[in-house]
Amino acid sequence: MRNFTYETSTRILFGKNRIAEVGTEVLKYGTKVLLAYGGGSIKTNGLYDKLTEVLKASQIEYVELSGIQPNPRIESVRKGIKLCRDNNVQFILAVGGGSVIDCAKAISMGLDYNGDPWDFFVRKAKIKHVVPIGSILTIAATGSEMNGNTVISNEATLEKRAAGHSSLQPRFSVLDPTYTFSVNKWQSASGVVDVMSHIFEQYFTQDKGTFVQDAMAEGILKTCIHYGPILLNEPENYEARANLMWASSLALNGLTGTGKLFGDWATHAIEHEVSAIYDLTHGAGLAILFPVWMHYVLDEKTAPKLAQYSRNIWGVTEGDDVKAAQQGIQLTREFFSSLGMPSALGQVDISADKLDQMAKGACAFGAIGMFKKLGPADVKEILQKAM
Amino acid sequence: MRNFTYETSTRILFGKNRIAEVGTEVLKYGTKVLLAYGGGSIKTNGLYDKLTEVLKASQIEYVELSGIQPNPRIESVRKGIKLCRDNNVQFILAVGGGSVIDCAKAISMGLDYNGDPWDFFVRKAKIKHVVPIGSILTIAATGSEMNGNTVISNEATLEKRAAGHSSLQPRFSVLDPTYTFSVNKWQSASGVVDVMSHIFEQYFTQDKGTFVQDAMAEGILKTCIHYGPILLNEPENYEARANLMWASSLALNGLTGTGKLFGDWATHAIEHEVSAIYDLTHGAGLAILFPVWMHYVLDEKTAPKLAQYSRNIWGVTEGDDVKAAQQGIQLTREFFSSLGMPSALGQVDISADKLDQMAKGACAFGAIGMFKKLGPADVKEILQKAM
Repeated sequence: MRNFTYETSTRILFGKNRIAEVGTEVLKYGTKVLLAYGGGSIKTNGLYDKLTEVLKASQIEYVELSGIQPNPRIESVRKGIKLCRDNNVQFILAVGGGSVIDCAKAISMGLDYNGDPWDFFVRKAKIKHVVPIGSILTIAATGSEMNGNTVISNEATLEKRAAGHSSLQPRFSVLDPTYTFSVNKWQSASGVVDVMSHIFEQYFTQDKGTFVQDAMAEGILKTCIHYGPILLNEPENYEARANLMWASSLALNGLTGTGKLFGDWATHAIEHEVSAIYDLTHGAGLAILFPVWMHYVLDEKTAPKLAQYSRNIWGVTEGDDVKAAQQGIQLTREFFSSLGMPSALGQVDISADKLDQMAKGACAFGAIGMFKKLGPADVKEILQKAM
Repeated sequence: MRNFTYETSTRILFGKNRIAEVGTEVLKYGTKVLLAYGGGSIKTNGLYDKLTEVLKASQIEYVELSGIQPNPRIESVRKGIKLCRDNNVQFILAVGGGSVIDCAKAISMGLDYNGDPWDFFVRKAKIKHVVPIGSILTIAATGSEMNGNTVISNEATLEKRAAGHSSLQPRFSVLDPTYTFSVNKWQSASGVVDVMSHIFEQYFTQDKGTFVQDAMAEGILKTCIHYGPILLNEPENYEARANLMWASSLALNGLTGTGKLFGDWATHAIEHEVSAIYDLTHGAGLAILFPVWMHYVLDEKTAPKLAQYSRNIWGVTEGDDVKAAQQGIQLTREFFSSLGMPSALGQVDISADKLDQMAKGACAFGAIGMFKKLGPADVKEILQKAM
């Protein structure tokens, strides 16, 4: 186990009606707020009305940044920064899923920076001063509600890039599972895949001796596999929504990655290239790519860990590590399919003509992956196998 | 799953040589420190010298409170409070195991209180203002390094009582597994039992729908069962020490108890009565009492959860819940014995003449336990069965 520093500062307010406490939480930081959200769903489901009522009762002023899209754009970030500056905003409240929270984080770090906020995502600028943010989560997927990471897309350059800093962890996050009742089957299943992918990315490493981290990671995976199918049949099953919502936060708050070098984020990087160009739902892209990646990286060196996964998660009893790994990969593919997720890029209208561009983009800062290092040629082959 | 609020503020500095960063951490809070520790072991193993060197290099002044005993006494707390007042201490640094950290917490909450610090433990006073504390952990057991709880003994009244507040969470804790290399077999095994007991206490509840918490709890239990025996044969096995050290913190930092009403702390309460009178090592007392408690509370209502434990942890395949539970309880008993732990109070020179007093003490504030409520008569019967 490697040395690590662990600190999660986000205060989690989990359960029904916790929105009532948002006024008290926000007032710890200020009285002028940017309210960031996506499409109109929070207006049709009553969340917007409830929230603005709570803010008004606490005499909190707010300006609104609406229309933040999935795969959030740098344009929204720029617009948000201008709004914050014009209105002396002291706190940013993100209401939505990972896209909205990520956008809020990018605004937060760009507010006190003189250049363009895209600079942070192409490593031209370092995150220094941030404005505190909070979140009210409406979909279980990215884990952005309990970490300091953000991913933003740039339509002009067809790039999708990540940035992060511990100071960007939301000061509080409201996790009310009932807010996810209305998430449709496709988005719910994509969320389950996203949560499982975050675990995969921290689980499949070459680090040794991280038994406790792996055992907890396996617990989160089992949770996803148990409740994923229930969700598709019973979208208002509170228990399923609650377990998956808490699992989404735990999957990417640093917990299962402690004591490891970094994890293997290659599949995420490859998927970002795909969804930067095609605007595919992140989890759906991961459902296609992860089994292909697992199969591509399987060799003598990686087989023991993939076999551990197959045995502990899928109950595979095969004694040979490579064969056990293959069985687990196949079961993973079948599970994603059972959730209604695609298994090939062709199924979601992605053609083979931009594979070179994507492969190059994924490796823009050099080889990717730690479980097995991948260059542009490897990435292209993975994409080809995923067609 | 019930509503919950989750916030762990302790910054964990895990791994070799992290003590080098203690100066930087302490200076966030002040330059005048109370250094609290137990017997002389930190002086013989070099930790004391290394630490004072680090403090001096950061120009941090310190006064010392030494001789804090296992099952820490209220006298040490009173002495520490006087020392802090006389020297205008701004920060308390605990170097040791749970006893030293608990003592530091009790000093912290008593410093700005005019009455006697024992008042907090008999519910005569409420915790308001605290002085920040930090810890350097030297034994994996209590989890005190990452929570706001403290347990103190009163020799005059033969009482052992708990108190707690989130503000008492250490601001930072150094977890260097090499500091536990010299912990002897008895204390190491007691620590493993203590960690497992903390999981049991949050796992065995009547709450439904806490799959993700249970799955993570099972991961921590498996870690203990995997590494406990290794530790006894290889006390300097870094991997084993590291996994058990991190497991000890995760077992009682709130994580596995989220979404549940409270957990069942009856066995802890009973053991506190035993060790208040006989000064028994806490984990050894728990090794005797936990299997007895499990057996005593086993009925139609509790059988499903005990059976889940037996199947998921011990691989029991028995289909009947009551029978499966019985098998798991027996395997638990055998595991504790394999670690060299006692299985009866008589084995550790405890006679049956104070059972009434202990039963009454355990229920001093009313019936105990949530998995199954226990009154003084139940507690006495458990103690009799444990003889």
